[in-house]
Amino acid sequence: MKVSVCRKAHFNAAHRLFNPNWTFEKNQEVFGKCNNPNFHGHNYNLEVWVKGEIDSETGYVIDLKILKDIIESEVEDRFDHKNLNEDTVEFQKLIPTAENIVVVIWKLIKAKLDPKLELKVRLFETERNVVEFEG
Amino acid sequence: MKVSVCRKAHFNAAHRLFNPNWTFEKNQEVFGKCNNPNFHGHNYNLEVWVKGEIDSETGYVIDLKILKDIIESEVEDRFDHKNLNEDTVEFQKLIPTAENIVVVIWKLIKAKLDPKLELKVRLFETERNVVEFEG
Amino acid sequence: MKVSVCRKAHFNAAHRLFNPNWTFEKNQEVFGKCNNPNFHGHNYNLEVWVKGEIDSETGYVIDLKILKDIIESEVEDRFDHKNLNEDTVEFQKLIPTAENIVVVIWKLIKAKLDPKLELKVRLFETERNVVEFEG
Amino acid sequence: MKVSVCRKAHFNAAHRLFNPNWTFEKNQEVFGKCNNPNFHGHNYNLEVWVKGEIDSETGYVIDLKILKDIIESEVEDRFDHKNLNEDTVEFQKLIPTAENIVVVIWKLIKAKLDPKLELKVRLFETERNVVEFEG
Amino acid sequence: MKVSVCRKAHFNAAHRLFNPNWTFEKNQEVFGKCNNPNFHGHNYNLEVWVKGEIDSETGYVIDLKILKDIIESEVEDRFDHKNLNEDTVEFQKLIPTAENIVVVIWKLIKAKLDPKLELKVRLFETERNVVEFEG
Amino acid sequence: MKVSVCRKAHFNAAHRLFNPNWTFEKNQEVFGKCNNPNFHGHNYNLEVWVKGEIDSETGYVIDLKILKDIIESEVEDRFDHKNLNEDTVEFQKLIPTAENIVVVIWKLIKAKLDPKLELKVRLFETERNVVEFEG
Repeated sequence: MKVSVCRKAHFNAAHRLFNPNWTFEKNQEVFGKCNNPNFHGHNYNLEVWVKGEIDSETGYVIDLKILKDIIESEVEDRFDHKNLNEDTVEFQKLIPTAENIVVVIWKLIKAKLDPKLELKVRLFETERNVVEFEG
Repeated sequence: MKVSVCRKAHFNAAHRLFNPNWTFEKNQEVFGKCNNPNFHGHNYNLEVWVKGEIDSETGYVIDLKILKDIIESEVEDRFDHKNLNEDTVEFQKLIPTAENIVVVIWKLIKAKLDPKLELKVRLFETERNVVEFEG
Repeated sequence: MKVSVCRKAHFNAAHRLFNPNWTFEKNQEVFGKCNNPNFHGHNYNLEVWVKGEIDSETGYVIDLKILKDIIESEVEDRFDHKNLNEDTVEFQKLIPTAENIVVVIWKLIKAKLDPKLELKVRLFETERNVVEFEG
Repeated sequence: MKVSVCRKAHFNAAHRLFNPNWTFEKNQEVFGKCNNPNFHGHNYNLEVWVKGEIDSETGYVIDLKILKDIIESEVEDRFDHKNLNEDTVEFQKLIPTAENIVVVIWKLIKAKLDPKLELKVRLFETERNVVEFEG
Repeated sequence: MKVSVCRKAHFNAAHRLFNPNWTFEKNQEVFGKCNNPNFHGHNYNLEVWVKGEIDSETGYVIDLKILKDIIESEVEDRFDHKNLNEDTVEFQKLIPTAENIVVVIWKLIKAKLDPKLELKVRLFETERNVVEFEG
Repeated sequence: MKVSVCRKAHFNAAHRLFNPNWTFEKNQEVFGKCNNPNFHGHNYNLEVWVKGEIDSETGYVIDLKILKDIIESEVEDRFDHKNLNEDTVEFQKLIPTAENIVVVIWKLIKAKLDPKLELKVRLFETERNVVEFEG
């Protein structure tokens, strides 16, 4: 009898989409305005869903203060008010599309969670662009 | 070929999180401000998702007026403008965390639904705290 | 390792719910105000979720410009600012309930997508009435 | 020391924008797809703001149950699930643009309110199109 | 050339609406379910709007960190996870309607602000009930 | 008898807050993480409110297609997917705080509008940070 609980978070970051193996023209064709060499940016909104059994003593699946601390140290401290291409190790060789970001975040949080817990991460790059990964 | 349909509802309630088997200090440590003996409260928003085959005569999975009546009698009449700890039988011995509330609501609605229909309930304790149960 | 991506769209349409095999009274009983012979209308909001592997060259599951074009030609051009009962072939013999609309849209988009991609469509008839279909 | 209070409401309606003094071509040029002779429709969301002194006995500016009843009888009963052009007297000779609708609603509610109270009405034709009138 | 800036905040609280000078029946008639002697509760969302000249050195009307600290000490510490009737001095003799709460909050914040700055406070008791006060 | 109409728009941009007349330490103290030399970014959401008389022939205050074109050429083409500090002339010498951005946008749109129309611009830097300017 598993219940899912969700904690929301957000971070603001700059990024640029381009593949270094391609010419500028090819990047422009695929990534359009997202290829601006001076970067652009987003408010990233995050939903972290954790699924597991309810602890009968606390009535909690997970103490959300613990989940909050994991999100802070693994996601916010790493990416908030950063340039994803320039300031992070995760996107040195990986294009920071929403798809790649959500997988990176899922792995970072999963590594800190009790393995019994299932994890799903949803990332809003804008209100209109959303991605989701559940492993 | 099953389709899911959702009906939303809401109720406002007071509650307090504490485990009567623990000391006040232990409750304070685990539940923090939620352990206020004079209670605090929330606007609970509910999404009730029902999944089933489309009836070819009506084009409906379920007549939403029927689902609305079930939610009213099983959830709103029971919990709206109530103190969950003091005014309800469901939380006499069960801590009214969002996780426990969502399971209680799921069982109350499930008992009134055609058994062919699948049920998922999502409960927003605040805009930032969400839980989900699908049996 | 599949990721889901979502694109949102919307269209405004008029419709009427009634079953031509029934009397006006029976229609009134089942569909109530939705049976108004002069029609009423909605702002339909659409979420189109596509699930697949990330392309390692682009970092994309699907180029959202391609998905946008599919939604435009298959959904918006067909239904936006239309009377669903009077102006479309899809609802000549099918009652335009939210359930039937979401299945029609799912089939229209699925036919244009790479078969490797999974598809889920969520349709908001109002902020309070939502349906979902994933095949 | 005046406080504003807001009550929200909504109605779903069909409409068509056209000026009967113009040719079809001129209407098409000005109103585009909104000129569809078979109508299209919207979910109209309404915010009714009433401003006045707080009653010291009740702590209320206005009993929202009274405001709710006014909105129901003056707006919802008149326009919900209606074709604005065909089913209402208000738009027999007035083009049902959001601007004209909001002025009509403001006048209907104002006539039923205590004259000491100030009134502002905001109407969302879609999430993206909003109009406001305060007399 | 004045610009308005807004900071949002929220607090969760229990309350009961009743006038101690009235009988229970009279309170029930006016306040209905809000008169539950065991209290009910809400998620209160707050928008604090401050209007003033832009400082040419910082580009700010007010450093939002300062405004955040004022809201924390004056509003959140005072009301969050509290029973407004039982745990606060402000509502010992004042009915905690949304109207009275918004005026109390406005006065508390105004007293801490630079007098050159204009203040408007908007309080959402629920998504559907909103009040606003600007002095 | 003036009515206000609103058109929404959005743009994504990178920026950095710092005053070139100050030391890095002073900038860090005032602007904190917003002073990251590699920039960060936001999804800026814009509400453009225009107030005027309703044209009796069209029922419009302003043809929203005209307002849309003004916002596109004056705001979106200029700022969308740009680095405000590096790619624009407007913020060569002006710190791109939300306050300064909203005044710049107001002036750009005002210059293109019929002088009879009143203008108010609201800018959401994040869901939590909002600014407003009406001249």
